[in-house]
Amino acid sequence: MADADIASFACLDTERHKRTGYPEAVYCAGKTDEQAFAIISALHGRGIPVLATRVAPSLASRVLAAFSGAAFDDIARTITLGVFCEPQDRQGLIAVVCAGTSDMPAALEAVRTAEFFGSAVECICDVGVAGIHRLFSRLSSIRKARVIVAVAGMEGALPSVLAGLVSAPVIAVPTSTGYGASFGGLAALLGMVNACAPGISVVNIDNGFGAGYQANLINKLGGA
Amino acid sequence: MADADIASFACLDTERHKRTGYPEAVYCAGKTDEQAFAIISALHGRGIPVLATRVAPSLASRVLAAFSGAAFDDIARTITLGVFCEPQDRQGLIAVVCAGTSDMPAALEAVRTAEFFGSAVECICDVGVAGIHRLFSRLSSIRKARVIVAVAGMEGALPSVLAGLVSAPVIAVPTSTGYGASFGGLAALLGMVNACAPGISVVNIDNGFGAGYQANLINKLGGA
Amino acid sequence: MADADIASFACLDTERHKRTGYPEAVYCAGKTDEQAFAIISALHGRGIPVLATRVAPSLASRVLAAFSGAAFDDIARTITLGVFCEPQDRQGLIAVVCAGTSDMPAALEAVRTAEFFGSAVECICDVGVAGIHRLFSRLSSIRKARVIVAVAGMEGALPSVLAGLVSAPVIAVPTSTGYGASFGGLAALLGMVNACAPGISVVNIDNGFGAGYQANLINKLGGA
Amino acid sequence: MADADIASFACLDTERHKRTGYPEAVYCAGKTDEQAFAIISALHGRGIPVLATRVAPSLASRVLAAFSGAAFDDIARTITLGVFCEPQDRQGLIAVVCAGTSDMPAALEAVRTAEFFGSAVECICDVGVAGIHRLFSRLSSIRKARVIVAVAGMEGALPSVLAGLVSAPVIAVPTSTGYGASFGGLAALLGMVNACAPGISVVNIDNGFGAGYQANLINKLGGA
Amino acid sequence: MADADIASFACLDTERHKRTGYPEAVYCAGKTDEQAFAIISALHGRGIPVLATRVAPSLASRVLAAFSGAAFDDIARTITLGVFCEPQDRQGLIAVVCAGTSDMPAALEAVRTAEFFGSAVECICDVGVAGIHRLFSRLSSIRKARVIVAVAGMEGALPSVLAGLVSAPVIAVPTSTGYGASFGGLAALLGMVNACAPGISVVNIDNGFGAGYQANLINKLGGA
Amino acid sequence: MADADIASFACLDTERHKRTGYPEAVYCAGKTDEQAFAIISALHGRGIPVLATRVAPSLASRVLAAFSGAAFDDIARTITLGVFCEPQDRQGLIAVVCAGTSDMPAALEAVRTAEFFGSAVECICDVGVAGIHRLFSRLSSIRKARVIVAVAGMEGALPSVLAGLVSAPVIAVPTSTGYGASFGGLAALLGMVNACAPGISVVNIDNGFGAGYQANLINKLGGA
Amino acid sequence: MADADIASFACLDTERHKRTGYPEAVYCAGKTDEQAFAIISALHGRGIPVLATRVAPSLASRVLAAFSGAAFDDIARTITLGVFCEPQDRQGLIAVVCAGTSDMPAALEAVRTAEFFGSAVECICDVGVAGIHRLFSRLSSIRKARVIVAVAGMEGALPSVLAGLVSAPVIAVPTSTGYGASFGGLAALLGMVNACAPGISVVNIDNGFGAGYQANLINKLGGA
Amino acid sequence: MADADIASFACLDTERHKRTGYPEAVYCAGKTDEQAFAIISALHGRGIPVLATRVAPSLASRVLAAFSGAAFDDIARTITLGVFCEPQDRQGLIAVVCAGTSDMPAALEAVRTAEFFGSAVECICDVGVAGIHRLFSRLSSIRKARVIVAVAGMEGALPSVLAGLVSAPVIAVPTSTGYGASFGGLAALLGMVNACAPGISVVNIDNGFGAGYQANLINKLGGA
Repeated sequence: MADADIASFACLDTERHKRTGYPEAVYCAGKTDEQAFAIISALHGRGIPVLATRVAPSLASRVLAAFSGAAFDDIARTITLGVFCEPQDRQGLIAVVCAGTSDMPAALEAVRTAEFFGSAVECICDVGVAGIHRLFSRLSSIRKARVIVAVAGMEGALPSVLAGLVSAPVIAVPTSTGYGASFGGLAALLGMVNACAPGISVVNIDNGFGAGYQANLINKLGGA
Repeated sequence: MADADIASFACLDTERHKRTGYPEAVYCAGKTDEQAFAIISALHGRGIPVLATRVAPSLASRVLAAFSGAAFDDIARTITLGVFCEPQDRQGLIAVVCAGTSDMPAALEAVRTAEFFGSAVECICDVGVAGIHRLFSRLSSIRKARVIVAVAGMEGALPSVLAGLVSAPVIAVPTSTGYGASFGGLAALLGMVNACAPGISVVNIDNGFGAGYQANLINKLGGA
Repeated sequence: MADADIASFACLDTERHKRTGYPEAVYCAGKTDEQAFAIISALHGRGIPVLATRVAPSLASRVLAAFSGAAFDDIARTITLGVFCEPQDRQGLIAVVCAGTSDMPAALEAVRTAEFFGSAVECICDVGVAGIHRLFSRLSSIRKARVIVAVAGMEGALPSVLAGLVSAPVIAVPTSTGYGASFGGLAALLGMVNACAPGISVVNIDNGFGAGYQANLINKLGGA
Repeated sequence: MADADIASFACLDTERHKRTGYPEAVYCAGKTDEQAFAIISALHGRGIPVLATRVAPSLASRVLAAFSGAAFDDIARTITLGVFCEPQDRQGLIAVVCAGTSDMPAALEAVRTAEFFGSAVECICDVGVAGIHRLFSRLSSIRKARVIVAVAGMEGALPSVLAGLVSAPVIAVPTSTGYGASFGGLAALLGMVNACAPGISVVNIDNGFGAGYQANLINKLGGA
Repeated sequence: MADADIASFACLDTERHKRTGYPEAVYCAGKTDEQAFAIISALHGRGIPVLATRVAPSLASRVLAAFSGAAFDDIARTITLGVFCEPQDRQGLIAVVCAGTSDMPAALEAVRTAEFFGSAVECICDVGVAGIHRLFSRLSSIRKARVIVAVAGMEGALPSVLAGLVSAPVIAVPTSTGYGASFGGLAALLGMVNACAPGISVVNIDNGFGAGYQANLINKLGGA
Repeated sequence: MADADIASFACLDTERHKRTGYPEAVYCAGKTDEQAFAIISALHGRGIPVLATRVAPSLASRVLAAFSGAAFDDIARTITLGVFCEPQDRQGLIAVVCAGTSDMPAALEAVRTAEFFGSAVECICDVGVAGIHRLFSRLSSIRKARVIVAVAGMEGALPSVLAGLVSAPVIAVPTSTGYGASFGGLAALLGMVNACAPGISVVNIDNGFGAGYQANLINKLGGA
Repeated sequence: MADADIASFACLDTERHKRTGYPEAVYCAGKTDEQAFAIISALHGRGIPVLATRVAPSLASRVLAAFSGAAFDDIARTITLGVFCEPQDRQGLIAVVCAGTSDMPAALEAVRTAEFFGSAVECICDVGVAGIHRLFSRLSSIRKARVIVAVAGMEGALPSVLAGLVSAPVIAVPTSTGYGASFGGLAALLGMVNACAPGISVVNIDNGFGAGYQANLINKLGGA
Repeated sequence: MADADIASFACLDTERHKRTGYPEAVYCAGKTDEQAFAIISALHGRGIPVLATRVAPSLASRVLAAFSGAAFDDIARTITLGVFCEPQDRQGLIAVVCAGTSDMPAALEAVRTAEFFGSAVECICDVGVAGIHRLFSRLSSIRKARVIVAVAGMEGALPSVLAGLVSAPVIAVPTSTGYGASFGGLAALLGMVNACAPGISVVNIDNGFGAGYQANLINKLGGA
């Protein structure tokens, strides 16, 4: 697809790296596979490393077939194409802490995002507050992180408990895990926004990308 | 006020004791002081022990002035007049566990209710999950209870954590403590209803009476 | 799947029995069939009796094919594998009372859960308040129970009526039965939380498991 | 105040009687006392019988002082000035059935409205479903009515139960009685709209006037 | 299916006709085709005329194949089997007035219901307030009715306009017609509940059955 | 107050006139009287004509006392100080159409705003849809306007009806007039946003200023 | 289909052009393909130019096959059949400004609508506020328009920023683009309704048609 | 008040400094003046520096009278008593950016909190997006900060615009500034949670304390 055609539906922000320090990521939900593929190709063609999120399997197949360097994580639903920061250059440590197995798509989206932009990440899963000994057994690992991403659905209590136990800032990700009165993650979102412990801020429901992105920004303040 | 006058606005359920084992309590909110006073007097006049809830100070003054045996708890906003169960006959143990100082009106309403109907109660306050060591330091006391009433506002995470640590059933009371997106206790209610730990059921926001009543019913199953 | 693989997405709470008296149940919604199967297998492999809820038919087929002792209830959507309490050892009585035919999935989930953990259960269905004579005709049965689970959708009025007629505690289960302004069970949830009769506490919409679990906890207080 | 002045804020519907059979009522909330007084005076001055609702005490004093024929019901918050239908000409029977003492303002607003427009009314109060024997004891009275107005707050279950017991149409009035998750009457409104029994329709929260008006229209279909 | 089997999921209210004057209708949503078929068959087998609503095409096929006297309306999604009131015996007149073509499923459900229970019905469609001349051109027909059912989605303004033009009671049916901020009919429901004109009461979103049922009750007050 | 002091809480947009054609208005709600007075004074001191909205009586007194040219409308709650457009230079015609007396504060806020910025305005009040003949009797006046502002609370049906009768664009203002399920104007807002007639756009609840401002912008497109 | 058949489900407003200046558009959602096709055919048969919106692909195929002059835009989901205003006669300029690629269906629906009714339109896409330089780079184009349609999902901030930069009125279209707490466009709707900049009014979520229609009405006030 | 008395309503977390690096702050809303005063006194008596938030004027008077070192900010509603970090030791820079004058209470609460815990803070007020040139004129100052706190009510668009212009993480504070459909800050909260720009996380409505606390944690990662 020619650039002129892309211009009919998208305005690539190729200068974003200069303005904010990081290249634009491609949010694929709500775009047709054709539109998303054209944007990914155009960025890649200009030498810009690409992180694409909310990638449908059909789009993933198409990108993987076209570009040998592309990598797809089918739980996180992310594609990376090109390298913004080499794995060995990742620095600092972010802990992504996840309440339950069903929260893993959001958690892994945060992991892939933070790693892509240059942070070292440790992912600790299924340590929800219903069996709090599981969280305590991992606490020494968690305390090594500069920033913590806490991912939970249902009542979303994990960040409140965590923030009282650590000195690092906690970025909370409510997820749509749950049913009935979880109302698609609303209960977890409200729970996290009302957390009684200080040191927590919150992103959108299932927004692993946003949490990973901000966690990386914060982590980088701590230096190499 | 004559019974005929009371009949114009209230239908006393004087047989409730026979039907359900416990006399009717008087919910005073939404009634005029005059109506509430007339109902309390009528029940008392028939020898029925009275527990009145949501008692405004003006009503309390009036009842205390009229009946020497009346007792008013100004935080719980309850009045008791007459004795359903002597203190020394209270049996079993209910733990009322309260997240913060601001949750005490609901917590004490639960305490007064459960005691009135015949349970021994221990009240443990300000042990919210933001400083979870406070909860752990009281856990051996809490574990002695047959039933637990967990009272919390804001994100309402206390019951989730508690229920994973004990074997007793937990009755959760969301409170209107909080501001902003707590929406008058909605956040805590949704949090508790979506609790990831089993063993929890929930009453209305600030409904200490309902929790104390239910806890007493359950406690009595355990015998004397 | 090896334990190490399971550890990448789940943290089995194999000590839960010791801590709370009952083994962990497996909530299958939000997990892939593969993840759920691995968890069920791992618990079973360690000799832990398994109750799995929200089981999709595809997962059920897989579990039934793998384990001869597995039992699937296709309305309750539960699988049991192994025995926590032999049927003849079930004790006490829980009445699961259900307003309409459409509420049966939640009601039967409560039945299977309470039976698995050791309670005798009687299920009384289609006795909603629109034809209240149906409820009265079953009242003597219901009054024999130590605990009542009341399951209803639409306006959720059943628990309010029941709680005024019995002395046992009522655990109310709102269901998503209904349409339009039922908003997926929200109307029933709000109705039950605002019930005018004392002696009621509420679980999440369609949460038959939670109600059955707590009813069993309460029932066991009454002894063998 | 001259008619020209009234015209700057109100357009009296003096022909409403011809068009719909009944004169316009004056809803006083949201109007200044001065505006409401001017409208009441103007209608009265043209010989139109006036029913005013949501009358503040200050407005009531002013109207009572100005017009000797005015009558104020301080619980219903209504004023009548002039007679649309003489008491002895009221025909048919409407039963206004009220769940609790706190629901009486809405119930009495319905009573005053239906009487003003020409219906005989019997008001039966405090027969909520928490003590359903109270309702049954009044059922033979209720069954004499052509139309039933059922008034309830909290979970609003009264109309569902009633509609299954009678053959008359039920107009349901949710009230703002309650607290916490009643959300100003939303729970009762949703409960009534989702009633499982047919034969029910619903008006706005606390809208006793609307229910009384509609009940009178229906009652009049039954003839003198 | 034997009666004993039906008893496992349904409690037929075969005495409803005696208690309320009309037989029970069968609401098929939320029931399996098998359950619904069994209930319809059982009622029919006992000589009770059947009105079934929310009938899926698969269930309709099954019922039509089994019973030659069954009639299916695929827009209203109703089945009738047996006759409660012969067409020539229908009496009084109900006007079902419908704002747009998309509102016809609810409107026709009301028509079929009211006719089944014995009312004459005239259905007037696509006369929404956006082109109010359409409504005025049909007003003389509408004014002949004893009761009006007004069906509308989107903002639900039709009942407000109608009620100011007629002397008959208006039963308003909000529909889920619309998109975006109609929130599945919530906007229309709120609009109708807040209608500024008296003489309106409201049923659940898309509840044509409830409106037709109550309109028939009211219509019958007017005699033969 | 010195400019430096104002700078600690406000950043006057003195160039707004150049950028958008109109000077900044002062929204006084949420500001202390002192802050609002300082801003009004500062703008006035620089020769910028001032329109202030949501002016509390205490602030009005202070401004009127300080500046002889200030004018206060106590229903609209607006102050004008200085002249942006002389009354004789107002051009075009805006019709502000208002459903009920209680909606007049928002309607008059729109009137004052549109006049201040240079439009001729005719205000037509109390012509809600419950008595639609009132609206029809004023239609020829309304049809003379280039733009219509339609102000209504409760169900907010006025704009839908109006937009089907005129060719001018309609700016709809939902108001908080109503009670119960009007939820502070939410019902009217949703009703207007879902209007079935094209030619309508909507501003915030009670936002007469916003409607008057935009109506003036549109009116000015029509020339002098 | 004969006109008589159409009359059973639709009341064509063939005089709309005379009454409001523009012919009726056909909203196809909620209608069966058969109903929509019949309405489009009937209008076309009477020589009325047709704009149909929310056209499903199956309906589009049918219309395109039947009428050679029909044109389908598969992103806007519109069909035009016949010409209301020749392209060379389009006058004035409307700018349709769109925040992201996913907002294009609503944006293009606005474009097609405004063009059909006679406006010249320029569409500027993917200029959301997250990279505000993109918006500034197009500002001189945007400032040439008489009216601006601003289309955005997620937080819906685009209209607020735009309205502070231009002197033209802004019609804001919230879209359902987003996930989690966007709640189907509610967040964008609320954001736009609460916009801090004056000069904005709002239509329903995803209502490109309504915005294009209103923008054309306003544009035409500016003359040829 | 003796420690034993405090223990009846509060459990001081005097070890919080050791566990998380910072002492506990005192949230005074929902506590009686007496309770809050006792807690502040007790912490101060143990040599712990105190930051109290949501301080009512009556409490402030009492604290100021009792402790000469106490300082009260009547807009921020904070009291500080004792010093955790000397002003000259504050390090790093946080920019608190505030959309309007009405947002200053939340903004100043953030300022006082971040300063108390050791950050240098610059507060930039009244730079909302409606006049975006105001924001641009302060951008070079804002870009010097390590962390940005963005405070806005109404539609809450400020963080979205800011985050696209800077490389620092943005902590967004929705405020209750606004009216009508702002629903007490809900619109701003949803807007910020759905922000289209990455790099943002959100705290509760009006939670300046939480934002200041989190910003300080992040700032400290950047070193001295």
